[in-house]
Amino acid sequence: MIIDCHGHYTTVPPAHKHFRERQLAGERPDAAVIRDEEIVETIEQNQLRVMDERGIDVTVFSPQASAMEHHVRDPDVAIAWARACNDLVARVTRLFPERFAGVCQLPQTPDGNLGACVAELRRCVEELGFVGCNLNPDPSGGSWTSRPLTDAFWFPLYEAMTGLDVPAMVHVSTSCNPNAHTLGAHYLNADTSVFMQFLESDLFGRFPTLRFVIPHGGGAVPYHWGRYRGLASRLERPQPEELFRNVFFDSCVYHQPGIDLLGRVIPPENVLFASEMLGAVRGTNPETGSGWDDTKRYVDALELPAEAKRQIFELNARRVYPRLGNRLEQMV
Amino acid sequence: MIIDCHGHYTTVPPAHKHFRERQLAGERPDAAVIRDEEIVETIEQNQLRVMDERGIDVTVFSPQASAMEHHVRDPDVAIAWARACNDLVARVTRLFPERFAGVCQLPQTPDGNLGACVAELRRCVEELGFVGCNLNPDPSGGSWTSRPLTDAFWFPLYEAMTGLDVPAMVHVSTSCNPNAHTLGAHYLNADTSVFMQFLESDLFGRFPTLRFVIPHGGGAVPYHWGRYRGLASRLERPQPEELFRNVFFDSCVYHQPGIDLLGRVIPPENVLFASEMLGAVRGTNPETGSGWDDTKRYVDALELPAEAKRQIFELNARRVYPRLGNRLEQMV
Repeated sequence: MIIDCHGHYTTVPPAHKHFRERQLAGERPDAAVIRDEEIVETIEQNQLRVMDERGIDVTVFSPQASAMEHHVRDPDVAIAWARACNDLVARVTRLFPERFAGVCQLPQTPDGNLGACVAELRRCVEELGFVGCNLNPDPSGGSWTSRPLTDAFWFPLYEAMTGLDVPAMVHVSTSCNPNAHTLGAHYLNADTSVFMQFLESDLFGRFPTLRFVIPHGGGAVPYHWGRYRGLASRLERPQPEELFRNVFFDSCVYHQPGIDLLGRVIPPENVLFASEMLGAVRGTNPETGSGWDDTKRYVDALELPAEAKRQIFELNARRVYPRLGNRLEQMV
Repeated sequence: MIIDCHGHYTTVPPAHKHFRERQLAGERPDAAVIRDEEIVETIEQNQLRVMDERGIDVTVFSPQASAMEHHVRDPDVAIAWARACNDLVARVTRLFPERFAGVCQLPQTPDGNLGACVAELRRCVEELGFVGCNLNPDPSGGSWTSRPLTDAFWFPLYEAMTGLDVPAMVHVSTSCNPNAHTLGAHYLNADTSVFMQFLESDLFGRFPTLRFVIPHGGGAVPYHWGRYRGLASRLERPQPEELFRNVFFDSCVYHQPGIDLLGRVIPPENVLFASEMLGAVRGTNPETGSGWDDTKRYVDALELPAEAKRQIFELNARRVYPRLGNRLEQMV
């Protein structure tokens, strides 16, 4: 089985986008009324079509990351937007129960809104059957005004995550800062920053079962693994390998040399197959004739034993997202 | 000849640090009086010792990057500090003329101070014989409040750089933001952000001879080269390879797999040998018995023709820093 742990619903029906536009215009509208047929059409013609072309069985599916827009300060707007986005993803998972599992957007704001985040996480997991959440380490959208993910501020969320046994993918949203392009800098920088936050802290001593997936192949981290090993020694911290009980990298790296590095540096039990589609980087590499984000080809080409590839493609996702494993077993 | 294009004077005499402490305490002291013997001792026992151990002939030498502290807002303090740091590096280059060439710190502040930066660049190049400068894309130290390096705000500096025919290394200083560790996140994130700024802009159409070295192996960029190629297509920008006339990466990546990726993805004419020592990552890899930052070993081990390695070790530095080439020829 091939599980893609990082897919976003980027092809939502127009009515959902219109709802958001009205929100941002200062209205307080109800969520859009969308028929099942519209959802089926946007999925079958896009995500599901590509999944079938590439041989992906299941996608761990979450709302569009850049559209989370946690920089919008009004907590009630954040709550209504997160609920509408998550409800739409939930409907996808009910319409295609064998192909999608849900991961929720949290109603974060630059000022926190953490109580509402915990409530929305519980609703999505307990009522909608979701298997994880996306956690934004920079709700400001490029100004980095929040506290690091290792700060006690976040602990109530971690209590809920560990209680529910769900992981978080560390995922920022749109950059409002012209210095950091959303897809070409902000996403990768967040991945790098948070890994270093983890390396500096004792977070996982306090929460031994807390789990994070760092997307986009871990940002700059695997490429600079020697730097992190050396820094850990200099800072008198445990070696970065100690984080492997709690921290995982996805495989959203869009060329063979990058995936080769990932496979060489990070053990197979800590890499989760993912494509980030239909996402950041669409289109076709003219040299290979396949999509930039067809990461399955790159992982297939890794010189690893079959069992290691099965970990990357399936077993790690089941382990890191235990509710996904339960869900898939109920389907059989 | 082996040229290291990225070395910092991190072992300055205590009196220089004391001068800085007095500055930060609100005094306006004169720069420290330091004898030649003190400078010789701090260099011979540290930088030069390691250069000799590793077979490095020449280091392109600049003030300690984390100590630039451009977040300190007072423009007069910034000017006095940059002058003192640069004067000290200039004395190193005069005491060891065959082993060191100077690169200057600019008196940047979060509010700009660009006129003073241009003046200090001219002084360092024309009077002190320096061959380049370090340019901080985030003088705020982690809040990213300045304009991108592609903004017209910076053009007066670029006029001076191209007029003098000197490149800039893109190098941030200390992070004041607890989200981004200085050495483990902020440095790498800046490298990544600025590369994407270049990819988004037509800066080099306006300044065809402007040259930047992006340190730390280009941050996350080579690892994510496919992402940048795909993003360039999506954004209808030229492919990232078009930047190779103006943008270069150093080799400060502290393990063999990382350097192997760099050598596989970036053509040898765009990689400049560098170690960043005595810098971020000191100490010894227990598995290899050599220093983490002994990057010469990793480059030596690259499967590249001898001529390509000569480009990386010597010829590219002479080409990107033409005043270095002139300086070395005068030495012979």
